[in-house]
Amino acid sequence: MKNTVEIVETKYFNFAGSPDGMMLESGEKLGPITIAYETYGRLNEDRDNAVMVLHALSGDAHAAGFHKGEKNPGWWNDMIGPGKAFDTEKYFIICSNIIGGCMGSTGPSSLNEKTGRPYGLDFPHITISDMVNAQKYLLDYLGIKKLLSVAGGSMGGMQVLQWVSSYPERILSAIPMATALKHSPQQIALNEVGRQAVMSDPDWRDGNYYGSGQPERGLALARMIGHITYMSDESMENKFSRKLKNGGYNFSFKPEFEVEGYLHHRGDSFVKRFDANSYLYITKALDYFDLSSTDKFLPAGRKIDTRFLVIAFKSDWLYPSYQSREIVRMLKARRLDVTYCEINSTYGHDAFLLEFAEEARLVSHFLNRVYNNAKNK
Amino acid sequence: MKNTVEIVETKYFNFAGSPDGMMLESGEKLGPITIAYETYGRLNEDRDNAVMVLHALSGDAHAAGFHKGEKNPGWWNDMIGPGKAFDTEKYFIICSNIIGGCMGSTGPSSLNEKTGRPYGLDFPHITISDMVNAQKYLLDYLGIKKLLSVAGGSMGGMQVLQWVSSYPERILSAIPMATALKHSPQQIALNEVGRQAVMSDPDWRDGNYYGSGQPERGLALARMIGHITYMSDESMENKFSRKLKNGGYNFSFKPEFEVEGYLHHRGDSFVKRFDANSYLYITKALDYFDLSSTDKFLPAGRKIDTRFLVIAFKSDWLYPSYQSREIVRMLKARRLDVTYCEINSTYGHDAFLLEFAEEARLVSHFLNRVYNNAKNK
Repeated sequence: MKNTVEIVETKYFNFAGSPDGMMLESGEKLGPITIAYETYGRLNEDRDNAVMVLHALSGDAHAAGFHKGEKNPGWWNDMIGPGKAFDTEKYFIICSNIIGGCMGSTGPSSLNEKTGRPYGLDFPHITISDMVNAQKYLLDYLGIKKLLSVAGGSMGGMQVLQWVSSYPERILSAIPMATALKHSPQQIALNEVGRQAVMSDPDWRDGNYYGSGQPERGLALARMIGHITYMSDESMENKFSRKLKNGGYNFSFKPEFEVEGYLHHRGDSFVKRFDANSYLYITKALDYFDLSSTDKFLPAGRKIDTRFLVIAFKSDWLYPSYQSREIVRMLKARRLDVTYCEINSTYGHDAFLLEFAEEARLVSHFLNRVYNNAKNK
Repeated sequence: MKNTVEIVETKYFNFAGSPDGMMLESGEKLGPITIAYETYGRLNEDRDNAVMVLHALSGDAHAAGFHKGEKNPGWWNDMIGPGKAFDTEKYFIICSNIIGGCMGSTGPSSLNEKTGRPYGLDFPHITISDMVNAQKYLLDYLGIKKLLSVAGGSMGGMQVLQWVSSYPERILSAIPMATALKHSPQQIALNEVGRQAVMSDPDWRDGNYYGSGQPERGLALARMIGHITYMSDESMENKFSRKLKNGGYNFSFKPEFEVEGYLHHRGDSFVKRFDANSYLYITKALDYFDLSSTDKFLPAGRKIDTRFLVIAFKSDWLYPSYQSREIVRMLKARRLDVTYCEINSTYGHDAFLLEFAEEARLVSHFLNRVYNNAKNK
């Protein structure tokens, strides 16, 4: 048995929304809309083996397998594939990109049909709920009435929670990982300094930089700040300690510790693949996210039979485990079927992408149980 | 009994170092040097009641009392004064500013006598050890052979530890608070993003901005990042929660959450009083700091009879308590007299400036014991 998804291609789904665009939470309309997505495995005849996987801030539709000619697999290749947790021999996996991004779906760098130029700051503000509404169009288009599961970490986990809130009747189970029901002031603060880094760069030009080159220094700096929050104190100590790039102090302001070199490297790679305006719009969507009241998350009177697997990671200080336990508390108060696990990891927030052995075991058992349960009904 | 130090003035001590300047750890020389300092209380006849208080990154010599015409007292007024922990009826308190800063002591914004212009990046790199060496000149000038104590939090605590390492024979006791024997990679990383914020601002002009105005946006951004690390997740939640400045979402990129407004306010105030190049030099000094080996901190064969009070704060994630326990472990391994206390506070790193009730009680008892012990010998 091959143990990986092989060559895949990103697909694009186009829709108009209503005649003049999809209504957004802000009251504005957006359309036409393109959503980039990939699928792995096969939809069965009953169309009941589909699992939707959702990505984090800088992720994309390419979750597994290889794009032709590329050496690196998709971002969750350890979790998705034949015999893996999201078993492509058994399940039909859909990874949907988000609107607002820059990875093939409609976002601020897309062409605004009304002006013939990229949207820039004319792009309307979007929320996690808007992202999920667009994904619902994709689900309808694929002819799937009910997802076996919807899963994701970080902002992917927020989309999972939003699916529960918006369309519980469309999902049989949900796996939110390393996530939260709302952004705390610390999380908002960290996003705001990232945005300020971008907007303080004169190359940002109020978002009108398409054609002149994007605000690279500002975006790289935002990403460097982000990377500190994705790791943990301990994982940084294990990886870098106080090691110096050149063995001794330079007594200069050039990066001289290895950890500095690493952050610069991550910042520089990021600006090659990510759009600065998308960074602004998506971090705002994160900050607006707030399902912390029962009214919004699990409104009384709405039938919810979704089963839950909630996963947190011990050293994650960006989305600390108390935020996951808050999700669990609300689900239990509603007497829903929920399994909670806090995985012992030193990787910090990045753990949901790295700590896959235990994560895979949990997800695999959970999906199996949900799947068999549904089949035996 | 009045309960506060009243009107005080900052004093300035000038010295040449050796004929061509004080030798720095980098191998370069710096001179002549000015050190700003303040004193509170009176030096007794035996000259054995002097306590040196040392400040953090953005602090200054003005630790207590009021400058003429100003409404706000010094930064540690809650701790220093008649009847307070650092009791000015009993002790002679000296607060010494650091070299490299911009609060009256020689730093990058000072006039370089060789060129007739501000140093800018011609200022030599300085370390915590250089700061302490300069303070030793001040102590000699004041005619104090042995300090009753040396105390400080954060970078002030590093200076305390450096005093122990460099001049144990000059200090009877030491009170390092919310500090560490070395900067961890996470601490270095947080400083590096702050420096990059400053240096990415075109107004920085490679440090030659004197006369043209300093890199305000970059420095404000660095300070915003800093403030996130000075607070805790919990103190931000208590202070701001998700409160909005205008009651509802703006759907804009202007600050709309209260926490964003607060950070902007702190950033903007900072640039009015602090020099961007000083920010670079001082954060580098922090990153270079490393007394984590016994050889450097407590060299074998050197007589050390200093007593220690080590204080950490529970919610401090910038200088987590495990770093204080590391100090304690090394002191105990050397069989030194050490008291350790972790104060239960939600204020994060800022706690050493805010959680003064418990801090005052600990410091007051400790100083009393050290003082009486010395008097009864």
